[in-house]
This record gives sequence, structure tokens and C-alpha cells, in this order.
Amino acid sequence: MSVVTVERKILKKNDEIAGENRMIFRNHHLFTLNMLSSPGSGKTTLLEKTLAQLPKEIKCAVIEGDVQTDNDARRIEKYQVPVVQIVTNGGCHLEAKLIQDALDNFKLQDLNLLIIENVGNLVCPANYDLGEDKKIVLVSTTEGDDKPLKYPSMFRVSDVLVINKIDLLPYVDFSLEQVRKNALQINPDLEVFEVSCRTGEGLENWMKWLVTATRGR
Amino acid sequence: MSVVTVERKILKKNDEIAGENRMIFRNHHLFTLNMLSSPGSGKTTLLEKTLAQLPKEIKCAVIEGDVQTDNDARRIEKYQVPVVQIVTNGGCHLEAKLIQDALDNFKLQDLNLLIIENVGNLVCPANYDLGEDKKIVLVSTTEGDDKPLKYPSMFRVSDVLVINKIDLLPYVDFSLEQVRKNALQINPDLEVFEVSCRTGEGLENWMKWLVTATRGR
Repeated sequence: MSVVTVERKILKKNDEIAGENRMIFRNHHLFTLNMLSSPGSGKTTLLEKTLAQLPKEIKCAVIEGDVQTDNDARRIEKYQVPVVQIVTNGGCHLEAKLIQDALDNFKLQDLNLLIIENVGNLVCPANYDLGEDKKIVLVSTTEGDDKPLKYPSMFRVSDVLVINKIDLLPYVDFSLEQVRKNALQINPDLEVFEVSCRTGEGLENWMKWLVTATRGR
Repeated sequence: MSVVTVERKILKKNDEIAGENRMIFRNHHLFTLNMLSSPGSGKTTLLEKTLAQLPKEIKCAVIEGDVQTDNDARRIEKYQVPVVQIVTNGGCHLEAKLIQDALDNFKLQDLNLLIIENVGNLVCPANYDLGEDKKIVLVSTTEGDDKPLKYPSMFRVSDVLVINKIDLLPYVDFSLEQVRKNALQINPDLEVFEVSCRTGEGLENWMKWLVTATRGR
């Protein structure tokens, strides 16, 4: 019971700082995404493809969250955007305070878009608001179409579902129709995109959504 | 800092109960596995293939851990083994106490093998000893060969690495050699199996290891 209390206190404190972050983002007209998924669903690859296709006038920065290593930040640096790596040293999710501290590394007034890649984990990061505008959950066609039912919290709190690796559909037991049905049963408001970050298929719809949303801020 | 203290207390209590579980398993000559991976790496499918191929004289029971749903237990029931589903209701890992409570549902004296399928999560379950003999970590070829470096704790505490979905190797950017190298760099004692649960390739080596280890108990 005491554990639950502590957890609630942590979440309450996190929510307060997330609220501060949200205010900072709004004051700077900065559109902010929190990218969430299991390890290996393709968050970093989606991010790479997005940065490569982003119109030049949209100025983007990236915060990378990882349990260990700065591999992802090094992949992102190649796209010549400001990037900060947060290494959680075993921690299973990002928290609002970590994001707030990372913001010191950016010139926020020069930015339009901030993309945060969370730790690969379909459970814990669902509970931690970072102050972002939209949560993007990825699921890949190799993970099974039952994942929204088995990890409902993540799909409930998300705004957008990106179904990745559709190029592998011929080789796996996965139904696009079923995963959509399962996800929308948990959260009927989810915006859904079907993409292959490898072949580029479907990315135009994702990019259109992202660019429109960023310009609207 | 207070959070860390609480976490340590929880882990200490968990370790005590895991020790009790270990004693119970030894007293019943019961060989016990804790299966760990990201969501969708193929834990349940490996379990199904294992149960289908297990020699009749090895009596097996299964504990399924899931955040939500009893889908996996229903998949396992078809193999006519005793199965208990633990639904964690949002919890990101199994704990030793949950396992101890679940044991009441089995006739331990009639069993040789207990397989526990943990919650799909490559971070948190690494910290929670359940009293098992061996931790089995799965990684699939669709997740990227960098996963041992990015989630080192899980690979450090595991005894066996199963690389699953090798049938998809022609369609993904994944090097078996590199993932082995990365995993063995974290933990040189890992026993490694390369399998496709879909085609059955490589399962004979896994089954041989499992049967020999169970009989040796």
C-alpha cells in the first residue's frame, strides 16, 4: 500500500513538471511529440525518415531516451538537427523533469518541432506525461496484432498509432484489420497510419499529418 | 532518493520470497524457467512449440504473466498442461510473491518442469528474481541486433539467449553474428540458440538443452 502511495506522489510531481513543460512549449509555439513503443518497433528509423523528409522551414530538435548507449543520438546527429541523449541507466521510462533539464540545450525560440523518443517499453512510459502535445505509439507487424489488447494503457493514452513494417506482412501472421480493430476498441480516437520505414510506403500520410499539425501550432 | 530506498526495500523483500520459491522448486526437483523479452518477440509461440515437442514423461506446468487479458493462457491450455494466468493490471513485471501464490494451483510433486512467461518488457523484469533456475531472454530478428547493448541488464542476468524469427532474416537488416557479439560482450556465459518458431528451424537444439537440463534436476 505504501508503494502505491509513493508511486502516486511520483506521478503527481511528474504531472506538475509536465504542466510546466507544456506551458514552455506553448509559449514557444513548439509542437511536441512523445514516441512510444516496444524495443525494435522502429521509432528511431521513423524519426530518421521523418527528419529526411521534413520541409526545410520546420526547425526540429530531438531528445533521445535510452536505458544505455547513445547509439540513437549518433544516428540522429547525421540529420543536422540539435539532439540530446538522455541515458536513464536502467530506468524504464522518461520523466518530465529529465525533459525540462534537457531543454536547456536548445534555443527554443528557433524551433517549431520537438520529437522525444522514449525508452523502448510498452508498459511504464504510458504513465509519465512529459508535457508533449501528442503521444505516438508504434507497433510493428512482427509483434502480433493482439498487442493493443495486451498493453491497453499505452494505446489508451496515445493520440496516433503508427503500424510499421508493413513490407513484412507477407511473411508474418498479422492482420492490419485486426490490429486496427483491437486498437480502436481501446481508443476510438486514435489516428492510424500504416507505413514501412524500410520501403517508404505510407510515409507521405504520416508526413502530411505531422507537417499540418506543426504548422497549426 | 526516497524512491530509490523504497525500490531497494521492494527488491530485498522480493529476493527473500524468491529464495523461498527456489527452495520449494528444489525440494520438488522442479526445473524452472523465466522467459523474458519485448512484447511480440515470440515467447508464447516458443512455449507452444516446446509443449508440443516435450517428451511425454516430462510433466510441465505454465504460469503466464500479462498486463491485461488471459489470451496467452488460453493458447497454452490447448496443450493440456496446467496453466495459471497472472494479470498484473498495469504492472510491468512479475514478482516472486505472485509466483508463490500461483503455485497453490499446481500439484508440484507431479511436475518436472515449470515455465514462467513474464510480462513483455525488456527493462523492468530483469530486476525481479522469481526463484527460477534459468532466465531465458528472447530477441527476434526484427528488433535490431543492437538490443543487447541498449538493454544490457536483461542480457546480463539471463542464462540463455534465444534468437527467434530467423526465417525473416532475408527481409530485415539484422546480423546474427553482430547480435551474438553484442550479447556475449555483455554476458560471455550466455548459451545461444537460433530458431524460427514459425518454421521449426533450430528448435531441436533448444529442445535438447531443455530436456537434458530438466532430466538433470
